[in-house]
This record gives sequence, structure tokens and C-alpha cells, in this order.
Amino acid sequence: MSAAPQSPSPSRRHPERRDALRALLRDRQVDAMLVTDLLNIRYLTGFTGSNAALLIATTGDRDSRFCTDFRYVEQAAAEVPDLRTVVDRASDLALVAAGGGRTAFESHVVTVEQHAALAAAAPPGTELVGLAGAVERLRATKDPSEIAALQQACAIADEALAGLIEAGGIRAGRTEREVALDLDERMRRLGSQDVSFPTILAAGEHSAIPHHQPTDRPLARGDLLKIDFGAVVDGYHSDMTRTFVLGPAAGWQAELHALVAAAQQAGRDAATAGATCRSVDAAAREVITAAGFGERFGHGLGHGVGLQVHEAPSLAATAAGRMTADMTVTVEPGVYLPGRGGVRIEDSGVVGPDGYRPLTLAPRDLVVLQP
Amino acid sequence: MSAAPQSPSPSRRHPERRDALRALLRDRQVDAMLVTDLLNIRYLTGFTGSNAALLIATTGDRDSRFCTDFRYVEQAAAEVPDLRTVVDRASDLALVAAGGGRTAFESHVVTVEQHAALAAAAPPGTELVGLAGAVERLRATKDPSEIAALQQACAIADEALAGLIEAGGIRAGRTEREVALDLDERMRRLGSQDVSFPTILAAGEHSAIPHHQPTDRPLARGDLLKIDFGAVVDGYHSDMTRTFVLGPAAGWQAELHALVAAAQQAGRDAATAGATCRSVDAAAREVITAAGFGERFGHGLGHGVGLQVHEAPSLAATAAGRMTADMTVTVEPGVYLPGRGGVRIEDSGVVGPDGYRPLTLAPRDLVVLQP
Repeated sequence: MSAAPQSPSPSRRHPERRDALRALLRDRQVDAMLVTDLLNIRYLTGFTGSNAALLIATTGDRDSRFCTDFRYVEQAAAEVPDLRTVVDRASDLALVAAGGGRTAFESHVVTVEQHAALAAAAPPGTELVGLAGAVERLRATKDPSEIAALQQACAIADEALAGLIEAGGIRAGRTEREVALDLDERMRRLGSQDVSFPTILAAGEHSAIPHHQPTDRPLARGDLLKIDFGAVVDGYHSDMTRTFVLGPAAGWQAELHALVAAAQQAGRDAATAGATCRSVDAAAREVITAAGFGERFGHGLGHGVGLQVHEAPSLAATAAGRMTADMTVTVEPGVYLPGRGGVRIEDSGVVGPDGYRPLTLAPRDLVVLQP
Repeated sequence: MSAAPQSPSPSRRHPERRDALRALLRDRQVDAMLVTDLLNIRYLTGFTGSNAALLIATTGDRDSRFCTDFRYVEQAAAEVPDLRTVVDRASDLALVAAGGGRTAFESHVVTVEQHAALAAAAPPGTELVGLAGAVERLRATKDPSEIAALQQACAIADEALAGLIEAGGIRAGRTEREVALDLDERMRRLGSQDVSFPTILAAGEHSAIPHHQPTDRPLARGDLLKIDFGAVVDGYHSDMTRTFVLGPAAGWQAELHALVAAAQQAGRDAATAGATCRSVDAAAREVITAAGFGERFGHGLGHGVGLQVHEAPSLAATAAGRMTADMTVTVEPGVYLPGRGGVRIEDSGVVGPDGYRPLTLAPRDLVVLQP
């Protein structure tokens, strides 16, 4: 599907990520960090099961511990060979009980109830210190192995969409649900582990609903057709939207598509390393606002993609922070005219020193399909 | 697929559920409850989008508010026509800011960071009161429309598995991944919205791993084959496991299967209204322990199924509480012999006054497939 990743093996990447986290922990002067978000645990260890906790000692891996339950003992031995593993169903409590000192916890993940339980389980003298988004900040910038996985997911999505069109899978009479299922099956057969999120397939007036769920409405001549979908490879989620028209495009459809395409181009041009996240959003938004449709573009311009389909950074009018090289983000302006239809064009791509490099490569021009 | 639900329309069910919650809120002497768990919101309103909050005033629906963001305005109008809707991206903060008084929040859902933001956004004099699991307790007992949806999901799973076997889809040479994908596609084509969870398809020594992810290992003569999977209808998740053998069964395979089948029968016999959750687990566990395999059955006997594939109640050695009529739970003992193979047999079913009624109906005897 794409070139093999030129990346270090997992056994080298995960310790390096844990060391990067330790640099943050030293800044916060904590002795350890309890990680309970499963994707953050996956990022730091490679573990893919559904119950785990991780205690990262600031001093190093030798004093760090991984914990999961009975069901995942064999999986943990294979996926996390380089950390001492404790087996306990209450994985977070078990690790905190064996810890002590100033212990950071993920205050954006740990619930109020869980925090009370952790405090009760901790040895006397333990100080629990809230620390939000530390691992997510590391995750926002991708290493080569992550970009390779995302590129592969994007290539599968491209190929599935091209195959769907070639096979005449998008045609009048088929329902939104049928076309979405066809596309989903193509992605799975091409090696996607799952769909990135429930595929949005919205025909005609439904395309005006930003997050529409496919229905039994049949596609018909004259429909705008918005398809927002993605594939997953090694846990990395692609995200792409294309908007088609069935049959010759009406004037307003072609104009709306051209407007959104121009805004998307402006967003991609602005998404370079060093730019503020806010300015990238603004670059695309200005195009739409200047055309008088500012109020019809009610969502942010984009978001990070990786182990989650929505992750840091956020490209929005209210976003903080700057773009850095090797962030992977979407650029996805849209204009939605209630009752008539909407257009969104979205790529996933990599921020580089020389600009934004889309990983989703399907044509962005208005594709007119034979109904 | 199954008889049409004889249930009240959604427009009647959701207000009734909100009234049931209000009875709990009056007991806790709170003025309102902020609900932020999306499945709890779906249960109480019917909303299926990905961003929402709900403020249930103890006084009634007239004083209650629903909040979502721009993307879901049209969907909210269709799905939640009976509550006043506020549009705001920070839905939880918007509702708390407009509230006041003693306000319960979901302390098992709200994070430490979110709690601080809620406290900062609340009008002076607001008292935030932690309340864990209130809506989940209501959800544990199902109404007829919920049981009908679950029954339909179970019927799809049964039909997909039968179709897979009939078509010769389970045979030596096919990989675990291929067979899992075939099964998943059959469920989707039969009307499942999604898979209930990533299908577990584990052949040979992999069947000893309770939660195995399908690999490229080809199925081979002599393999035990464990398949754990489910369908989703109207948001309700089925869950079923069957274990097969490819080719004539070895003596130890037949004996292991018979042991687990006997334990599963004992669990189903014990799962009647009024029984303690713990005693249901014990009934099945005793069979396995008596045979000397107690340590090879390391997980709980079962769990509730509904809007989540794992929800209340828990049937485990350490579980609290009693079974009540119209709970829907799994019964799923398993014995796992590392390096050799494992057997699990699981049904989803309804607890009734006269006993447990399985909704998954695929044969439970050891099915020997031609390799």
C-alpha cells in the first residue's frame, strides 16, 4: 500500500517516548505519573487491550510498572516485554497503592469518583498532582512510524473510494446506507482494521447536516453527495471528505463547491510549521466569510489525527498554540445550506517546514458522477 | 428479523425515563442533575450525536434543558423535540452556567479537570453534588422496546453465524482475520449498524487468550475455534461466544467443551430474578472448580448488555446487588489452557421471574466443522 516505515522498531520507540514524558515530569518535579488513558498507554507501551494502567517513574523504566488483568496476560507479555507487569483487575489502584511520593495523574481523564478511590488507595504521604494533556502534547507531533501508518490508512481510504466510483457504486437508486456499507467493506478488505468513525454519507438536503448518519434515502439525480470517512492502520485514523454531484451540477452547486475548494486551498497553504493554529483557521474562514457564507461554516477548520480521529491540535477560531513540523492535521472547511445541501472538502496531511503535505490524494475538484 | 416492538413510541418513553430519574433526584434532595455521559443522554432523550449535555430539573421537563453544538442542530430538532435546546460548543458549562442550586453531576463520568471548570462556570451559590451511576441503574432494567432491539441484534448475530457456517466460511486455510471480516460483513448486511465490539476470532492455541485479536494465522485441522461477536440494533449490543472444533474433536477438546457447557447451563439456571449477582457467578464457577479448572476461569461470569456491550449489572465473585426481572445479561464461563486452547460459551438473554431466557439461540453443543 505504501513504502515500509523507515522507523525504529517498537522496542526502541516506546522507551524513547517514555523518556520524553520523563523530561516533562522532571519539569513538574513529580516522582512518577499514573497514566490511565488507554490510548496514552498504547502510545507509551504498545499495549492494545481494554484494561491497563501505567506508572511511569521519573527515575526510569526499572522503577516503572505496567498493570493489566487476567484476560490480557499473554497479550501484555507480547506487547509490553520491556516493563515489569503487575496483574490486577483494578489496575490504577494497584499501581498507586505500590507507589508513593508526588504522583501526577491525568486530570482530564481521571473521574471525580476515581480520584477519590486513588487517594484512598495511595500510601500515606502520597501527593496526587493533576496534570492534563501531557502525553497528548507528545502525541501531537508524529514520528516516522506514525506518519507511515497514517499514510497507509489514507492510501486505503483513497483506494476504497476510487474502487467504489469505478465499480459504479455511487448511483441513483442505491441508499445512503448501501453506499456507506460498500465503502466500509472496501476499506476493511484493503486492510483497514476498522472504520475510523461511522461513515458519513449524506445525499441531497442531508448534505447540509454536518454530521449526518446514513439513512435509507435513495440517491437521486441532482443530489450533492458528501462522503466523510476514514481507515485505520496500526491504530492510526485517516479522515477525508469529498463532495460529489450526481448528474450535471446546478450552478449553485458548482459555485458552492468552488468556494469551499478555494477555502480549503487557503487553509492548506496556511498550515505550515510556525503558524498559529488560529491563523490557519482564519485563512480558510476569510474566503468563506468574504463570499457571505461565514455563518454557514459553523465548525473549526481541522484537528489532529492519529491514535484518535480527533486529537490535538485544534485548528479553530478559539484555538491556542502553534503548528510544528510533523503534526498531522485535517483541513476541512464546509458550507451548509439547510434544506438545500452542503459541501465539505477535507484532507489529512502532515505539517512540514515547507508547508502542508496531504496524505489523502483523491481528486479535490468537483467530480460529476453519472446518476 | 423479529416481531415489531410492542413498545410506546420514543416520544413517550424518554419523558417516562426522565421522570424515573427525577424520583431518584428527589431522594437525594437536589434541584437538578447535569447528565454528561452520552449514552445516558441518549437513554433519557434519544439523541445520538457526539456532543451534548442535559440538565434535568427535578421540577419537570419545562425547566429542563438540552444542549448540543452547531453540527447537531438539525439532528437535535428531530431527535429531541420535547426539550428546550441550547446551542453551545461547551455544552456542559453552558447548562451549569444557566442553572443553580443543588446540582448533581455524574462523578463517575466527570473528570477532575471538568469538575473544576463546572465549579468555575456555575452561578454563585451552586452546590455540585457527586452522584455516581444513577442513570446506569435505571438502564440495567430494560423496557419492551429495549428488549426488542436487543432481540433483533441477537437474531442478526445468530443468522450471520449460521450463514457463515452454511457457506463454508469457516475452513482450514482461511485466516482468523478473513473469517472475522466475513462474519462482520454478514452482520452489517443483515442490518447491524456496526459490530458490537471488535470480533474475537481465535484459532488453536490463540483460543486460550480470552480477548484475542484476529491475526493472519490460518485455521487448521484440529483447531479449537472461539468466536465472540455481536451486532448492534438501535444502539443495543448483542454479545455471544461459540467455540467450534475443526475436524474430529480430540478427547480433551470434547471434555473441555462439555465442562464449559455444563457450567454455562448452571449459570443460566441460576440467573433468575431475586438471585444475588454473586450467586449466579458462583453457580457456574463451582462446576469448573469442581473439575479442577477454577484457576483457568479468570474472569467474571457475565455482565449487562444494552446501549453498552458491558454495562450494569456485573455477575462476578465480588459483585454486589441482585438480579431483577428484565435485566439483560450475558452468561459466559470459559476455561483457558495456555498454549493448548480454550473454550467459552456465551449467551445474551433476559432475566425473568421464571428464569433466564436466552436471546442468542445458536446451538450450544460442540459443533464439529469439516476442516
